[in-house]
Amino acid sequence: MNQQEDSTKIDRVKQVLTQLAEKNKDIQENGNEQTNQNSQINQNNKPQIQNGNQSLNQLKPSLSLNRKKSMDYLIPYIGLDIGGTVAKCCIAFKKGINVEFTHLAHLKIQTHSDFDLYFEDFPSNDLTELFEFIDEQEISNFTQKFYITGGGAHKYEEVIKKRLGVQVIKVQEMQSLSYGLKVLDMLLPNDSVYRFNQEKKQIEYIEQSNWMFPLILVQIGSGVSILKVKNKDEFERVSGTSLGGNVFLGIAHLLTGNNNFNQALKKASIGNNRNIDLFVSDIYKQIQSVPEDIYGDSLCVSFGRVKQMLKEGKEIKTEDLLQSALQMVAFNISQIAFLVARIHKIDHIFFTGYFIKNHTDTIGCIEEAVNYFSKSQEQNKKAFFLKHDGFLGALGSFYVAATDSKIKFKSKQEEQ
Amino acid sequence: MNQQEDSTKIDRVKQVLTQLAEKNKDIQENGNEQTNQNSQINQNNKPQIQNGNQSLNQLKPSLSLNRKKSMDYLIPYIGLDIGGTVAKCCIAFKKGINVEFTHLAHLKIQTHSDFDLYFEDFPSNDLTELFEFIDEQEISNFTQKFYITGGGAHKYEEVIKKRLGVQVIKVQEMQSLSYGLKVLDMLLPNDSVYRFNQEKKQIEYIEQSNWMFPLILVQIGSGVSILKVKNKDEFERVSGTSLGGNVFLGIAHLLTGNNNFNQALKKASIGNNRNIDLFVSDIYKQIQSVPEDIYGDSLCVSFGRVKQMLKEGKEIKTEDLLQSALQMVAFNISQIAFLVARIHKIDHIFFTGYFIKNHTDTIGCIEEAVNYFSKSQEQNKKAFFLKHDGFLGALGSFYVAATDSKIKFKSKQEEQ
Repeated sequence: MNQQEDSTKIDRVKQVLTQLAEKNKDIQENGNEQTNQNSQINQNNKPQIQNGNQSLNQLKPSLSLNRKKSMDYLIPYIGLDIGGTVAKCCIAFKKGINVEFTHLAHLKIQTHSDFDLYFEDFPSNDLTELFEFIDEQEISNFTQKFYITGGGAHKYEEVIKKRLGVQVIKVQEMQSLSYGLKVLDMLLPNDSVYRFNQEKKQIEYIEQSNWMFPLILVQIGSGVSILKVKNKDEFERVSGTSLGGNVFLGIAHLLTGNNNFNQALKKASIGNNRNIDLFVSDIYKQIQSVPEDIYGDSLCVSFGRVKQMLKEGKEIKTEDLLQSALQMVAFNISQIAFLVARIHKIDHIFFTGYFIKNHTDTIGCIEEAVNYFSKSQEQNKKAFFLKHDGFLGALGSFYVAATDSKIKFKSKQEEQ
Repeated sequence: MNQQEDSTKIDRVKQVLTQLAEKNKDIQENGNEQTNQNSQINQNNKPQIQNGNQSLNQLKPSLSLNRKKSMDYLIPYIGLDIGGTVAKCCIAFKKGINVEFTHLAHLKIQTHSDFDLYFEDFPSNDLTELFEFIDEQEISNFTQKFYITGGGAHKYEEVIKKRLGVQVIKVQEMQSLSYGLKVLDMLLPNDSVYRFNQEKKQIEYIEQSNWMFPLILVQIGSGVSILKVKNKDEFERVSGTSLGGNVFLGIAHLLTGNNNFNQALKKASIGNNRNIDLFVSDIYKQIQSVPEDIYGDSLCVSFGRVKQMLKEGKEIKTEDLLQSALQMVAFNISQIAFLVARIHKIDHIFFTGYFIKNHTDTIGCIEEAVNYFSKSQEQNKKAFFLKHDGFLGALGSFYVAATDSKIKFKSKQEEQ
């Protein structure tokens, strides 16, 4: 390779990156809505998750009805999970109150007690939005104890104490996940755990109960923790990986200049990683059959086409690269979780965490990966997902806050 | 985030990428030698691999002595391993001949028979250089059978047949690796397998023999294959991952415009991934102790600092990003290999393949990762490496070629 070739290549890459940045700018300036008409979108393969009339996509109503004073309706407990990218919040209001703050309506849990649970997320690199929310709802006037889990419980402890004048009660991260799972089992035994039907491309809720233990719980946030949960009360952290949501976000940020996870996810969803990655069929394309020890037309080499595409001057689409990065991360985590499940001889693998966000591409990739490894290694492992995937830690922290004050969560049976 | 902020961020990223590309261009134009003076290079942590007087770095002598005709000295067999990025070649010449082609001198194997083995690598996306080499050495005049392994054996079969007028004998990929290991045991029982001493930052050769079986063999090329090798003759492919050398190279290519693996590796070696990744100590930096279930100051979130650095307008150095990508890939493969070894209850994990290339950063990262997982999960797994890491498949293919023609490899014992 001579210097002239090198310079030409660099110019080509700069040109590609400039195009990507320009395109991204366009998309943002047009309200994040304008999609690339040339993108190969297979609508059949990319359904929105629907369950009856309920959509799992973010619905954020903001109802401004007659507002009562907070003290009349706020249940004075708060559970927070401050992660590397997002701060997740769980609070409760008395039943029958029209809440007037923006929240993730599809996640609201109607409990069998006299209050309901609400969820909201905020950026975690700067807690301004979270503080504004807390001020507006006057939460720190009614509770002196903030129950917080996640790395941010340590990182922001002093900031929170000083800014809000409250106590910070740290909830152990893995403990909060285990409690979150327990609360879901009590409050949403039939509408919380789901599987992904690969053929129908849709989710199917299944009853949650003792059948699911023991299970492997894979918490995918910026990083990844893997827990072995023996039963409703016993668990241990058995593994983890540094290759989590932040690798996807880091690549997205470098490619598009945008560090918004939801926007990166949306852009990835119109991309096709077949343009970026090499599959078994690409590598062995000259022959009809592939070696016996390689199973199916699986992902073989992530980013395997980049070199050839740049060489041939073909356009590399940001959305394709993002889809490739998303699949790389999701597939890899699935593999590690599968291997951990094999070691612990456990068949049920629960994937949760903000990285998943009930996003069809991610769920589909995980389901496919677990299926692939399970079949090729003659195992019977299955992937399960949770509707409240990103909020298990916040829910678990809320549970600790409530039970510390002798508030009892009633299960459906207890109510009856 | 408003549109103006978005535009500013995009401009910032474009500026960073332009700087990176310019810097890379400078480095290339100055003979790939000029390093960034500001880079944090810890010479103590980045030693060149030395073993006695022999350096494992690429030494490529080209001796032009009195050339005999090829037929007088060429042993008419060739073993090739054509991978996704690199084509590896193994050929033999009679002893006492001064070879006059450029080759990887540190890998030369002096056999106990009347010939020695030589190794060379070529780009595999375009086999021009390989064909020129074969023409120059008149190899296809002396052998009609080319023994080839790797995906390229299928992909380039027709091209090779047509261009060279030879037969292509395909060697099963995993079989070639197993044979390669066998040949090394016969010919280099004391100078082939090594461990990395993390304290002294140096490699230590150890005797190769039956003690090492059963072993897990991790072949890291563009993609990754993981084999369970029961003994010298029995093996099976038990796992693999798409997240191999090509992910490192893909990221390098997108960031620098350069797709040369050796140059990317060299650039990574002056980088510091502490500037890019988050470690346990970063996340829990507010407190003195970390949660009990997280062991040591391990890598926590790959690319975890990118967001904050771009936000603060700090310079992101290409070399730091490349080091981060290198560590991400090496650490992840080590983890998967470790888990596979646990499942198969095997303690010896051999890491090989062109991705490693006896590169200190890669070896050090793998050694650290296997150690970390082994300690934290109370296991006794150990990482081993091979001097001929990238050439096991080519060596194994040569072995098939030679034994098909009843050529016998003598072990040291047989010679005596």
